Amino acid sequence: MRAFLLLTLSLSVLLSVQAQKPHRCKAPPYLEGKLLVVSPEGKTAVFERFSYDAVEQRIRVIASGKEGTQDVFVDFLMLFREGFYYDINYHNKTCVKVPFSGDFIPIEIPINAQHTAQFVIGSLSAPAQGLLVNNWVGSLPELKANYSLSFTEFGCIPVSAYYNVENTGHVLSSYFDVVVGLENPDVFIPPSFCTSAKLLEKNKDEMADFFTALL
Amino acid sequence: MRAFLLLTLSLSVLLSVQAQKPHRCKAPPYLEGKLLVVSPEGKTAVFERFSYDAVEQRIRVIASGKEGTQDVFVDFLMLFREGFYYDINYHNKTCVKVPFSGDFIPIEIPINAQHTAQFVIGSLSAPAQGLLVNNWVGSLPELKANYSLSFTEFGCIPVSAYYNVENTGHVLSSYFDVVVGLENPDVFIPPSFCTSAKLLEKNKDEMADFFTALL
Repeated sequence: MRAFLLLTLSLSVLLSVQAQKPHRCKAPPYLEGKLLVVSPEGKTAVFERFSYDAVEQRIRVIASGKEGTQDVFVDFLMLFREGFYYDINYHNKTCVKVPFSGDFIPIEIPINAQHTAQFVIGSLSAPAQGLLVNNWVGSLPELKANYSLSFTEFGCIPVSAYYNVENTGHVLSSYFDVVVGLENPDVFIPPSFCTSAKLLEKNKDEMADFFTALL
Repeated sequence: MRAFLLLTLSLSVLLSVQAQKPHRCKAPPYLEGKLLVVSPEGKTAVFERFSYDAVEQRIRVIASGKEGTQDVFVDFLMLFREGFYYDINYHNKTCVKVPFSGDFIPIEIPINAQHTAQFVIGSLSAPAQGLLVNNWVGSLPELKANYSLSFTEFGCIPVSAYYNVENTGHVLSSYFDVVVGLENPDVFIPPSFCTSAKLLEKNKDEMADFFTALL
């Protein structure tokens, strides 16, 4: 009986020690949501809606906003397995297939990221008043960039992604209204006027990561 | 029976219509928390810990960070009823009483603020993965500033405060780790070496609002 109690106690301590250190996590494979991207010194502010399918490696993103004084509107269907994205214009009913390179990297904490802090947005003093979040930092030498990513402790939902790129400036993406699942998987089917679109011949853009793809 | 059912139905509809429009709210009277203040074009980043007592109208704030290349460290005990704040330096055991003007304005949505959006940080697809937040905007003509405030839907906990001040730039305060209540009310008692501090004779700073007081 005593041995059993000791074993139980040891196991509890072991589990609680393991549980105290946040682990890197991967977001659910199907997500929909919105994000606000603000970049170099607040001159660019773009509002985006995205649908994300990590199983078939597809992202659809519709973005509108301002880059400096220019209005921006894009509608991209990114097919990572095929290695191209559709640049869709519903207004003109035109469609361009643009090649890009790089493996699909799902929404997750990168393997070399360092955990910096666990914090609460709002308050945990009462239910539904706060959200427990983890922050991770790291660098992407190939892009000469540092990043800071925040994900919810429960569910591994992205909250914000901050990139500081050498000689370019900083980009902050804030995620909100994220839904686990896909309300309408049709968003990954290109519209009929895309059937005859030809693949552009150009140097491939590097667009491997979900976060950098949406910048 | 039918009349009763109709009455119940009408009341439910009435209540749900009322409930759908977020109301201005006031934060709980006792709060403690942290905030990160980032101001003009990211050159200032200050980390603050605050204790807030709306009943006795007192705020204690300890801030450290960088303003440009300068290190900043301040420890203020603001007594709105008395009309001065203690500028405390534990290291040198010195203390200055600095007069300021303006009524205490609690942490709340200002009366002329407009509701712009309700959004979710994270996701409501599962418990503990998301936080429902309301955003309000307005202007402070006396400061030539526009503001954007976000509070939790439940509990009225501040999440962020953004000010865009004409000719000065923008300031973003992000709140986190907020606790309802006061862990240690002693933070509002000035240290013993403040007893002999004399009130400075100077033009009074305007510091009426909780948010502007912490900038």
